[in-house]
Amino acid sequence: MYTADLDTPAVLVDLEKVERNLRRARDYAERHGLSLRPHIKTHKLLRFARRQLDLGARGITCQKLGEAECMADGGIDDILVTYNILGAAKLARLAALHARIRLAVVADSREVVDGYAAAFTDPRKPLSVLVECDTGAGRCGVQTPAAALELAKAIAAPPGLRFAGLMTYQPQGATATTDAWLAEARRLLCAAGLPPETVSAGGTPDLLRAAEISSATEYRPGTYIYSDRMQVAWGHGTLEDCALTVLTTVVSRPTAERAILDAGSKVLAADTAPVPGHGHILEFPDAVIRSLSEEHATVDVSACPHKPGIGERVRVIPNHVCPVSNLVDRVHLLRGDRIEEILPVDARGRST
Amino acid sequence: MYTADLDTPAVLVDLEKVERNLRRARDYAERHGLSLRPHIKTHKLLRFARRQLDLGARGITCQKLGEAECMADGGIDDILVTYNILGAAKLARLAALHARIRLAVVADSREVVDGYAAAFTDPRKPLSVLVECDTGAGRCGVQTPAAALELAKAIAAPPGLRFAGLMTYQPQGATATTDAWLAEARRLLCAAGLPPETVSAGGTPDLLRAAEISSATEYRPGTYIYSDRMQVAWGHGTLEDCALTVLTTVVSRPTAERAILDAGSKVLAADTAPVPGHGHILEFPDAVIRSLSEEHATVDVSACPHKPGIGERVRVIPNHVCPVSNLVDRVHLLRGDRIEEILPVDARGRST
Repeated sequence: MYTADLDTPAVLVDLEKVERNLRRARDYAERHGLSLRPHIKTHKLLRFARRQLDLGARGITCQKLGEAECMADGGIDDILVTYNILGAAKLARLAALHARIRLAVVADSREVVDGYAAAFTDPRKPLSVLVECDTGAGRCGVQTPAAALELAKAIAAPPGLRFAGLMTYQPQGATATTDAWLAEARRLLCAAGLPPETVSAGGTPDLLRAAEISSATEYRPGTYIYSDRMQVAWGHGTLEDCALTVLTTVVSRPTAERAILDAGSKVLAADTAPVPGHGHILEFPDAVIRSLSEEHATVDVSACPHKPGIGERVRVIPNHVCPVSNLVDRVHLLRGDRIEEILPVDARGRST
Repeated sequence: MYTADLDTPAVLVDLEKVERNLRRARDYAERHGLSLRPHIKTHKLLRFARRQLDLGARGITCQKLGEAECMADGGIDDILVTYNILGAAKLARLAALHARIRLAVVADSREVVDGYAAAFTDPRKPLSVLVECDTGAGRCGVQTPAAALELAKAIAAPPGLRFAGLMTYQPQGATATTDAWLAEARRLLCAAGLPPETVSAGGTPDLLRAAEISSATEYRPGTYIYSDRMQVAWGHGTLEDCALTVLTTVVSRPTAERAILDAGSKVLAADTAPVPGHGHILEFPDAVIRSLSEEHATVDVSACPHKPGIGERVRVIPNHVCPVSNLVDRVHLLRGDRIEEILPVDARGRST
């Protein structure tokens, strides 16, 4: 089966590019003595999680418990869930997961730690908890190294918990400030007799300069496996590295300047990028996808020397690939132009 | 089962609001002698498609063939697919669908009509084709009333096709220009002996002034069933009408001004609205959802007199509900605070 045999829109993943992207990260991490713990939110596929482990990753990262359960069901046995887990229902699920794999979670407040402490009480199999640190991204995380120390102490106290280190999702381009933040937290922890076993940073934009965060022992890249327009705009690699594309058909040419594709925000996702447009059309690099409605892309082809015709198929690199994986039920794995395999997206929709 | 028993994030649909929204549209359409053909892209549920028909709709609208196949599998037998259907694979699927239900499609080019004419050749069961008209929205559609006439003639010629009328998805607020456009096209068609049986306009923002488009015989509202922040910003109803909410948990309060919810763009969708923020929090109307990452909402609670606590549950009205239905595998139907039913989203992901 070839791409010509596929109905559109269809999500294609180039296996050679995937392999090259994974190896580039593996080589960098090896060279700098960093462990990798890839974030599977980008691909949500057991196949690629296994490949990441085969290439030396120490485990995987999941954002949601539902993703972790799906990966554990597929045999992945070392998972960090980089999320505050709260409430009786989720804590019961967390306990069930803890019983069957090597599991770690994070916390950024006393409330979250208290929940873990109440649900995990066995000192023979304590739950590993990392302190999430806000080193500038302005999302979750304790606000200062001193607060990190304080929360680490709260984690270290109950018999069923184990303080396992620090975790941050640092802002893009801020390796220096993140380095200073984590180094100070590490100093405080060591002085208090709580040296962090793991210091985990993440994000594809800074993947290839992760070593600038000197105290980091582990890195959690996600998007690097496929890459996308956003990553390229941020300086990570080139459009050549983008492994995931959406195969679409030109369904209308209402005017000389306008083309309409059969993929909208329900496939390409509405995420914007630091560059104009809603995706890059491989065959028409001068075209600009001006807007997406749910099932249409409206494309300005005025700058294209040759214009696409009705029925013509084109491939689009999305602005942001992670939501694309989460929109489709299956992806088509390509070897050249041949479809090697069609895979269900194992953890699609597992946001709970 | 009650909302308190649900794990978060969870999509809730208030059945009383749904019924009120459907009846308001039905009453308006009845009063003005308009047929309704609701667009199911918003809910993607057989249950609500059936309810819309029970309330007098003449049929339903689908954007993609995959949605129409799903609805036909569930027993819906009158469907307009408002999309140019192109290519051998899709035309074969269209023929299979045509064999079992009352089906109509649209075309906006000679290429699309030629495809239909080649695939449908039985004069005893011709395929109904409407001419899609661009009355200002700048997406698909022929550009002038004269072009509509020309394409209508091309549809009327082959024995296996039947010219069934005109279809537009008009720009929001442009009932007057749409009215003028369609009236002129109608005049040309009547003069040529091709009076349009159906003139179909659409879009929730203008639903309650659809009669201003005097030549319209049918209206295709979609979002009206749930409504959302975008519709309210455009002047359609109030936040009280919004039937779909996302139940979330406050998972972090990193600073006095910041709260983090466990729903990001993978549940709420990244669509922006003509008002600031990424959703309206019912319990904290002064809060602003500043940004969404994939699984987090970052909320500014500085303007809230009382601030949400960690573990507290809040409900969010999304900016745009249609992509939300398409992100989740199931929705929870509410009667008051009680979950009456949990439904799989039948046509989720059917973008092909």
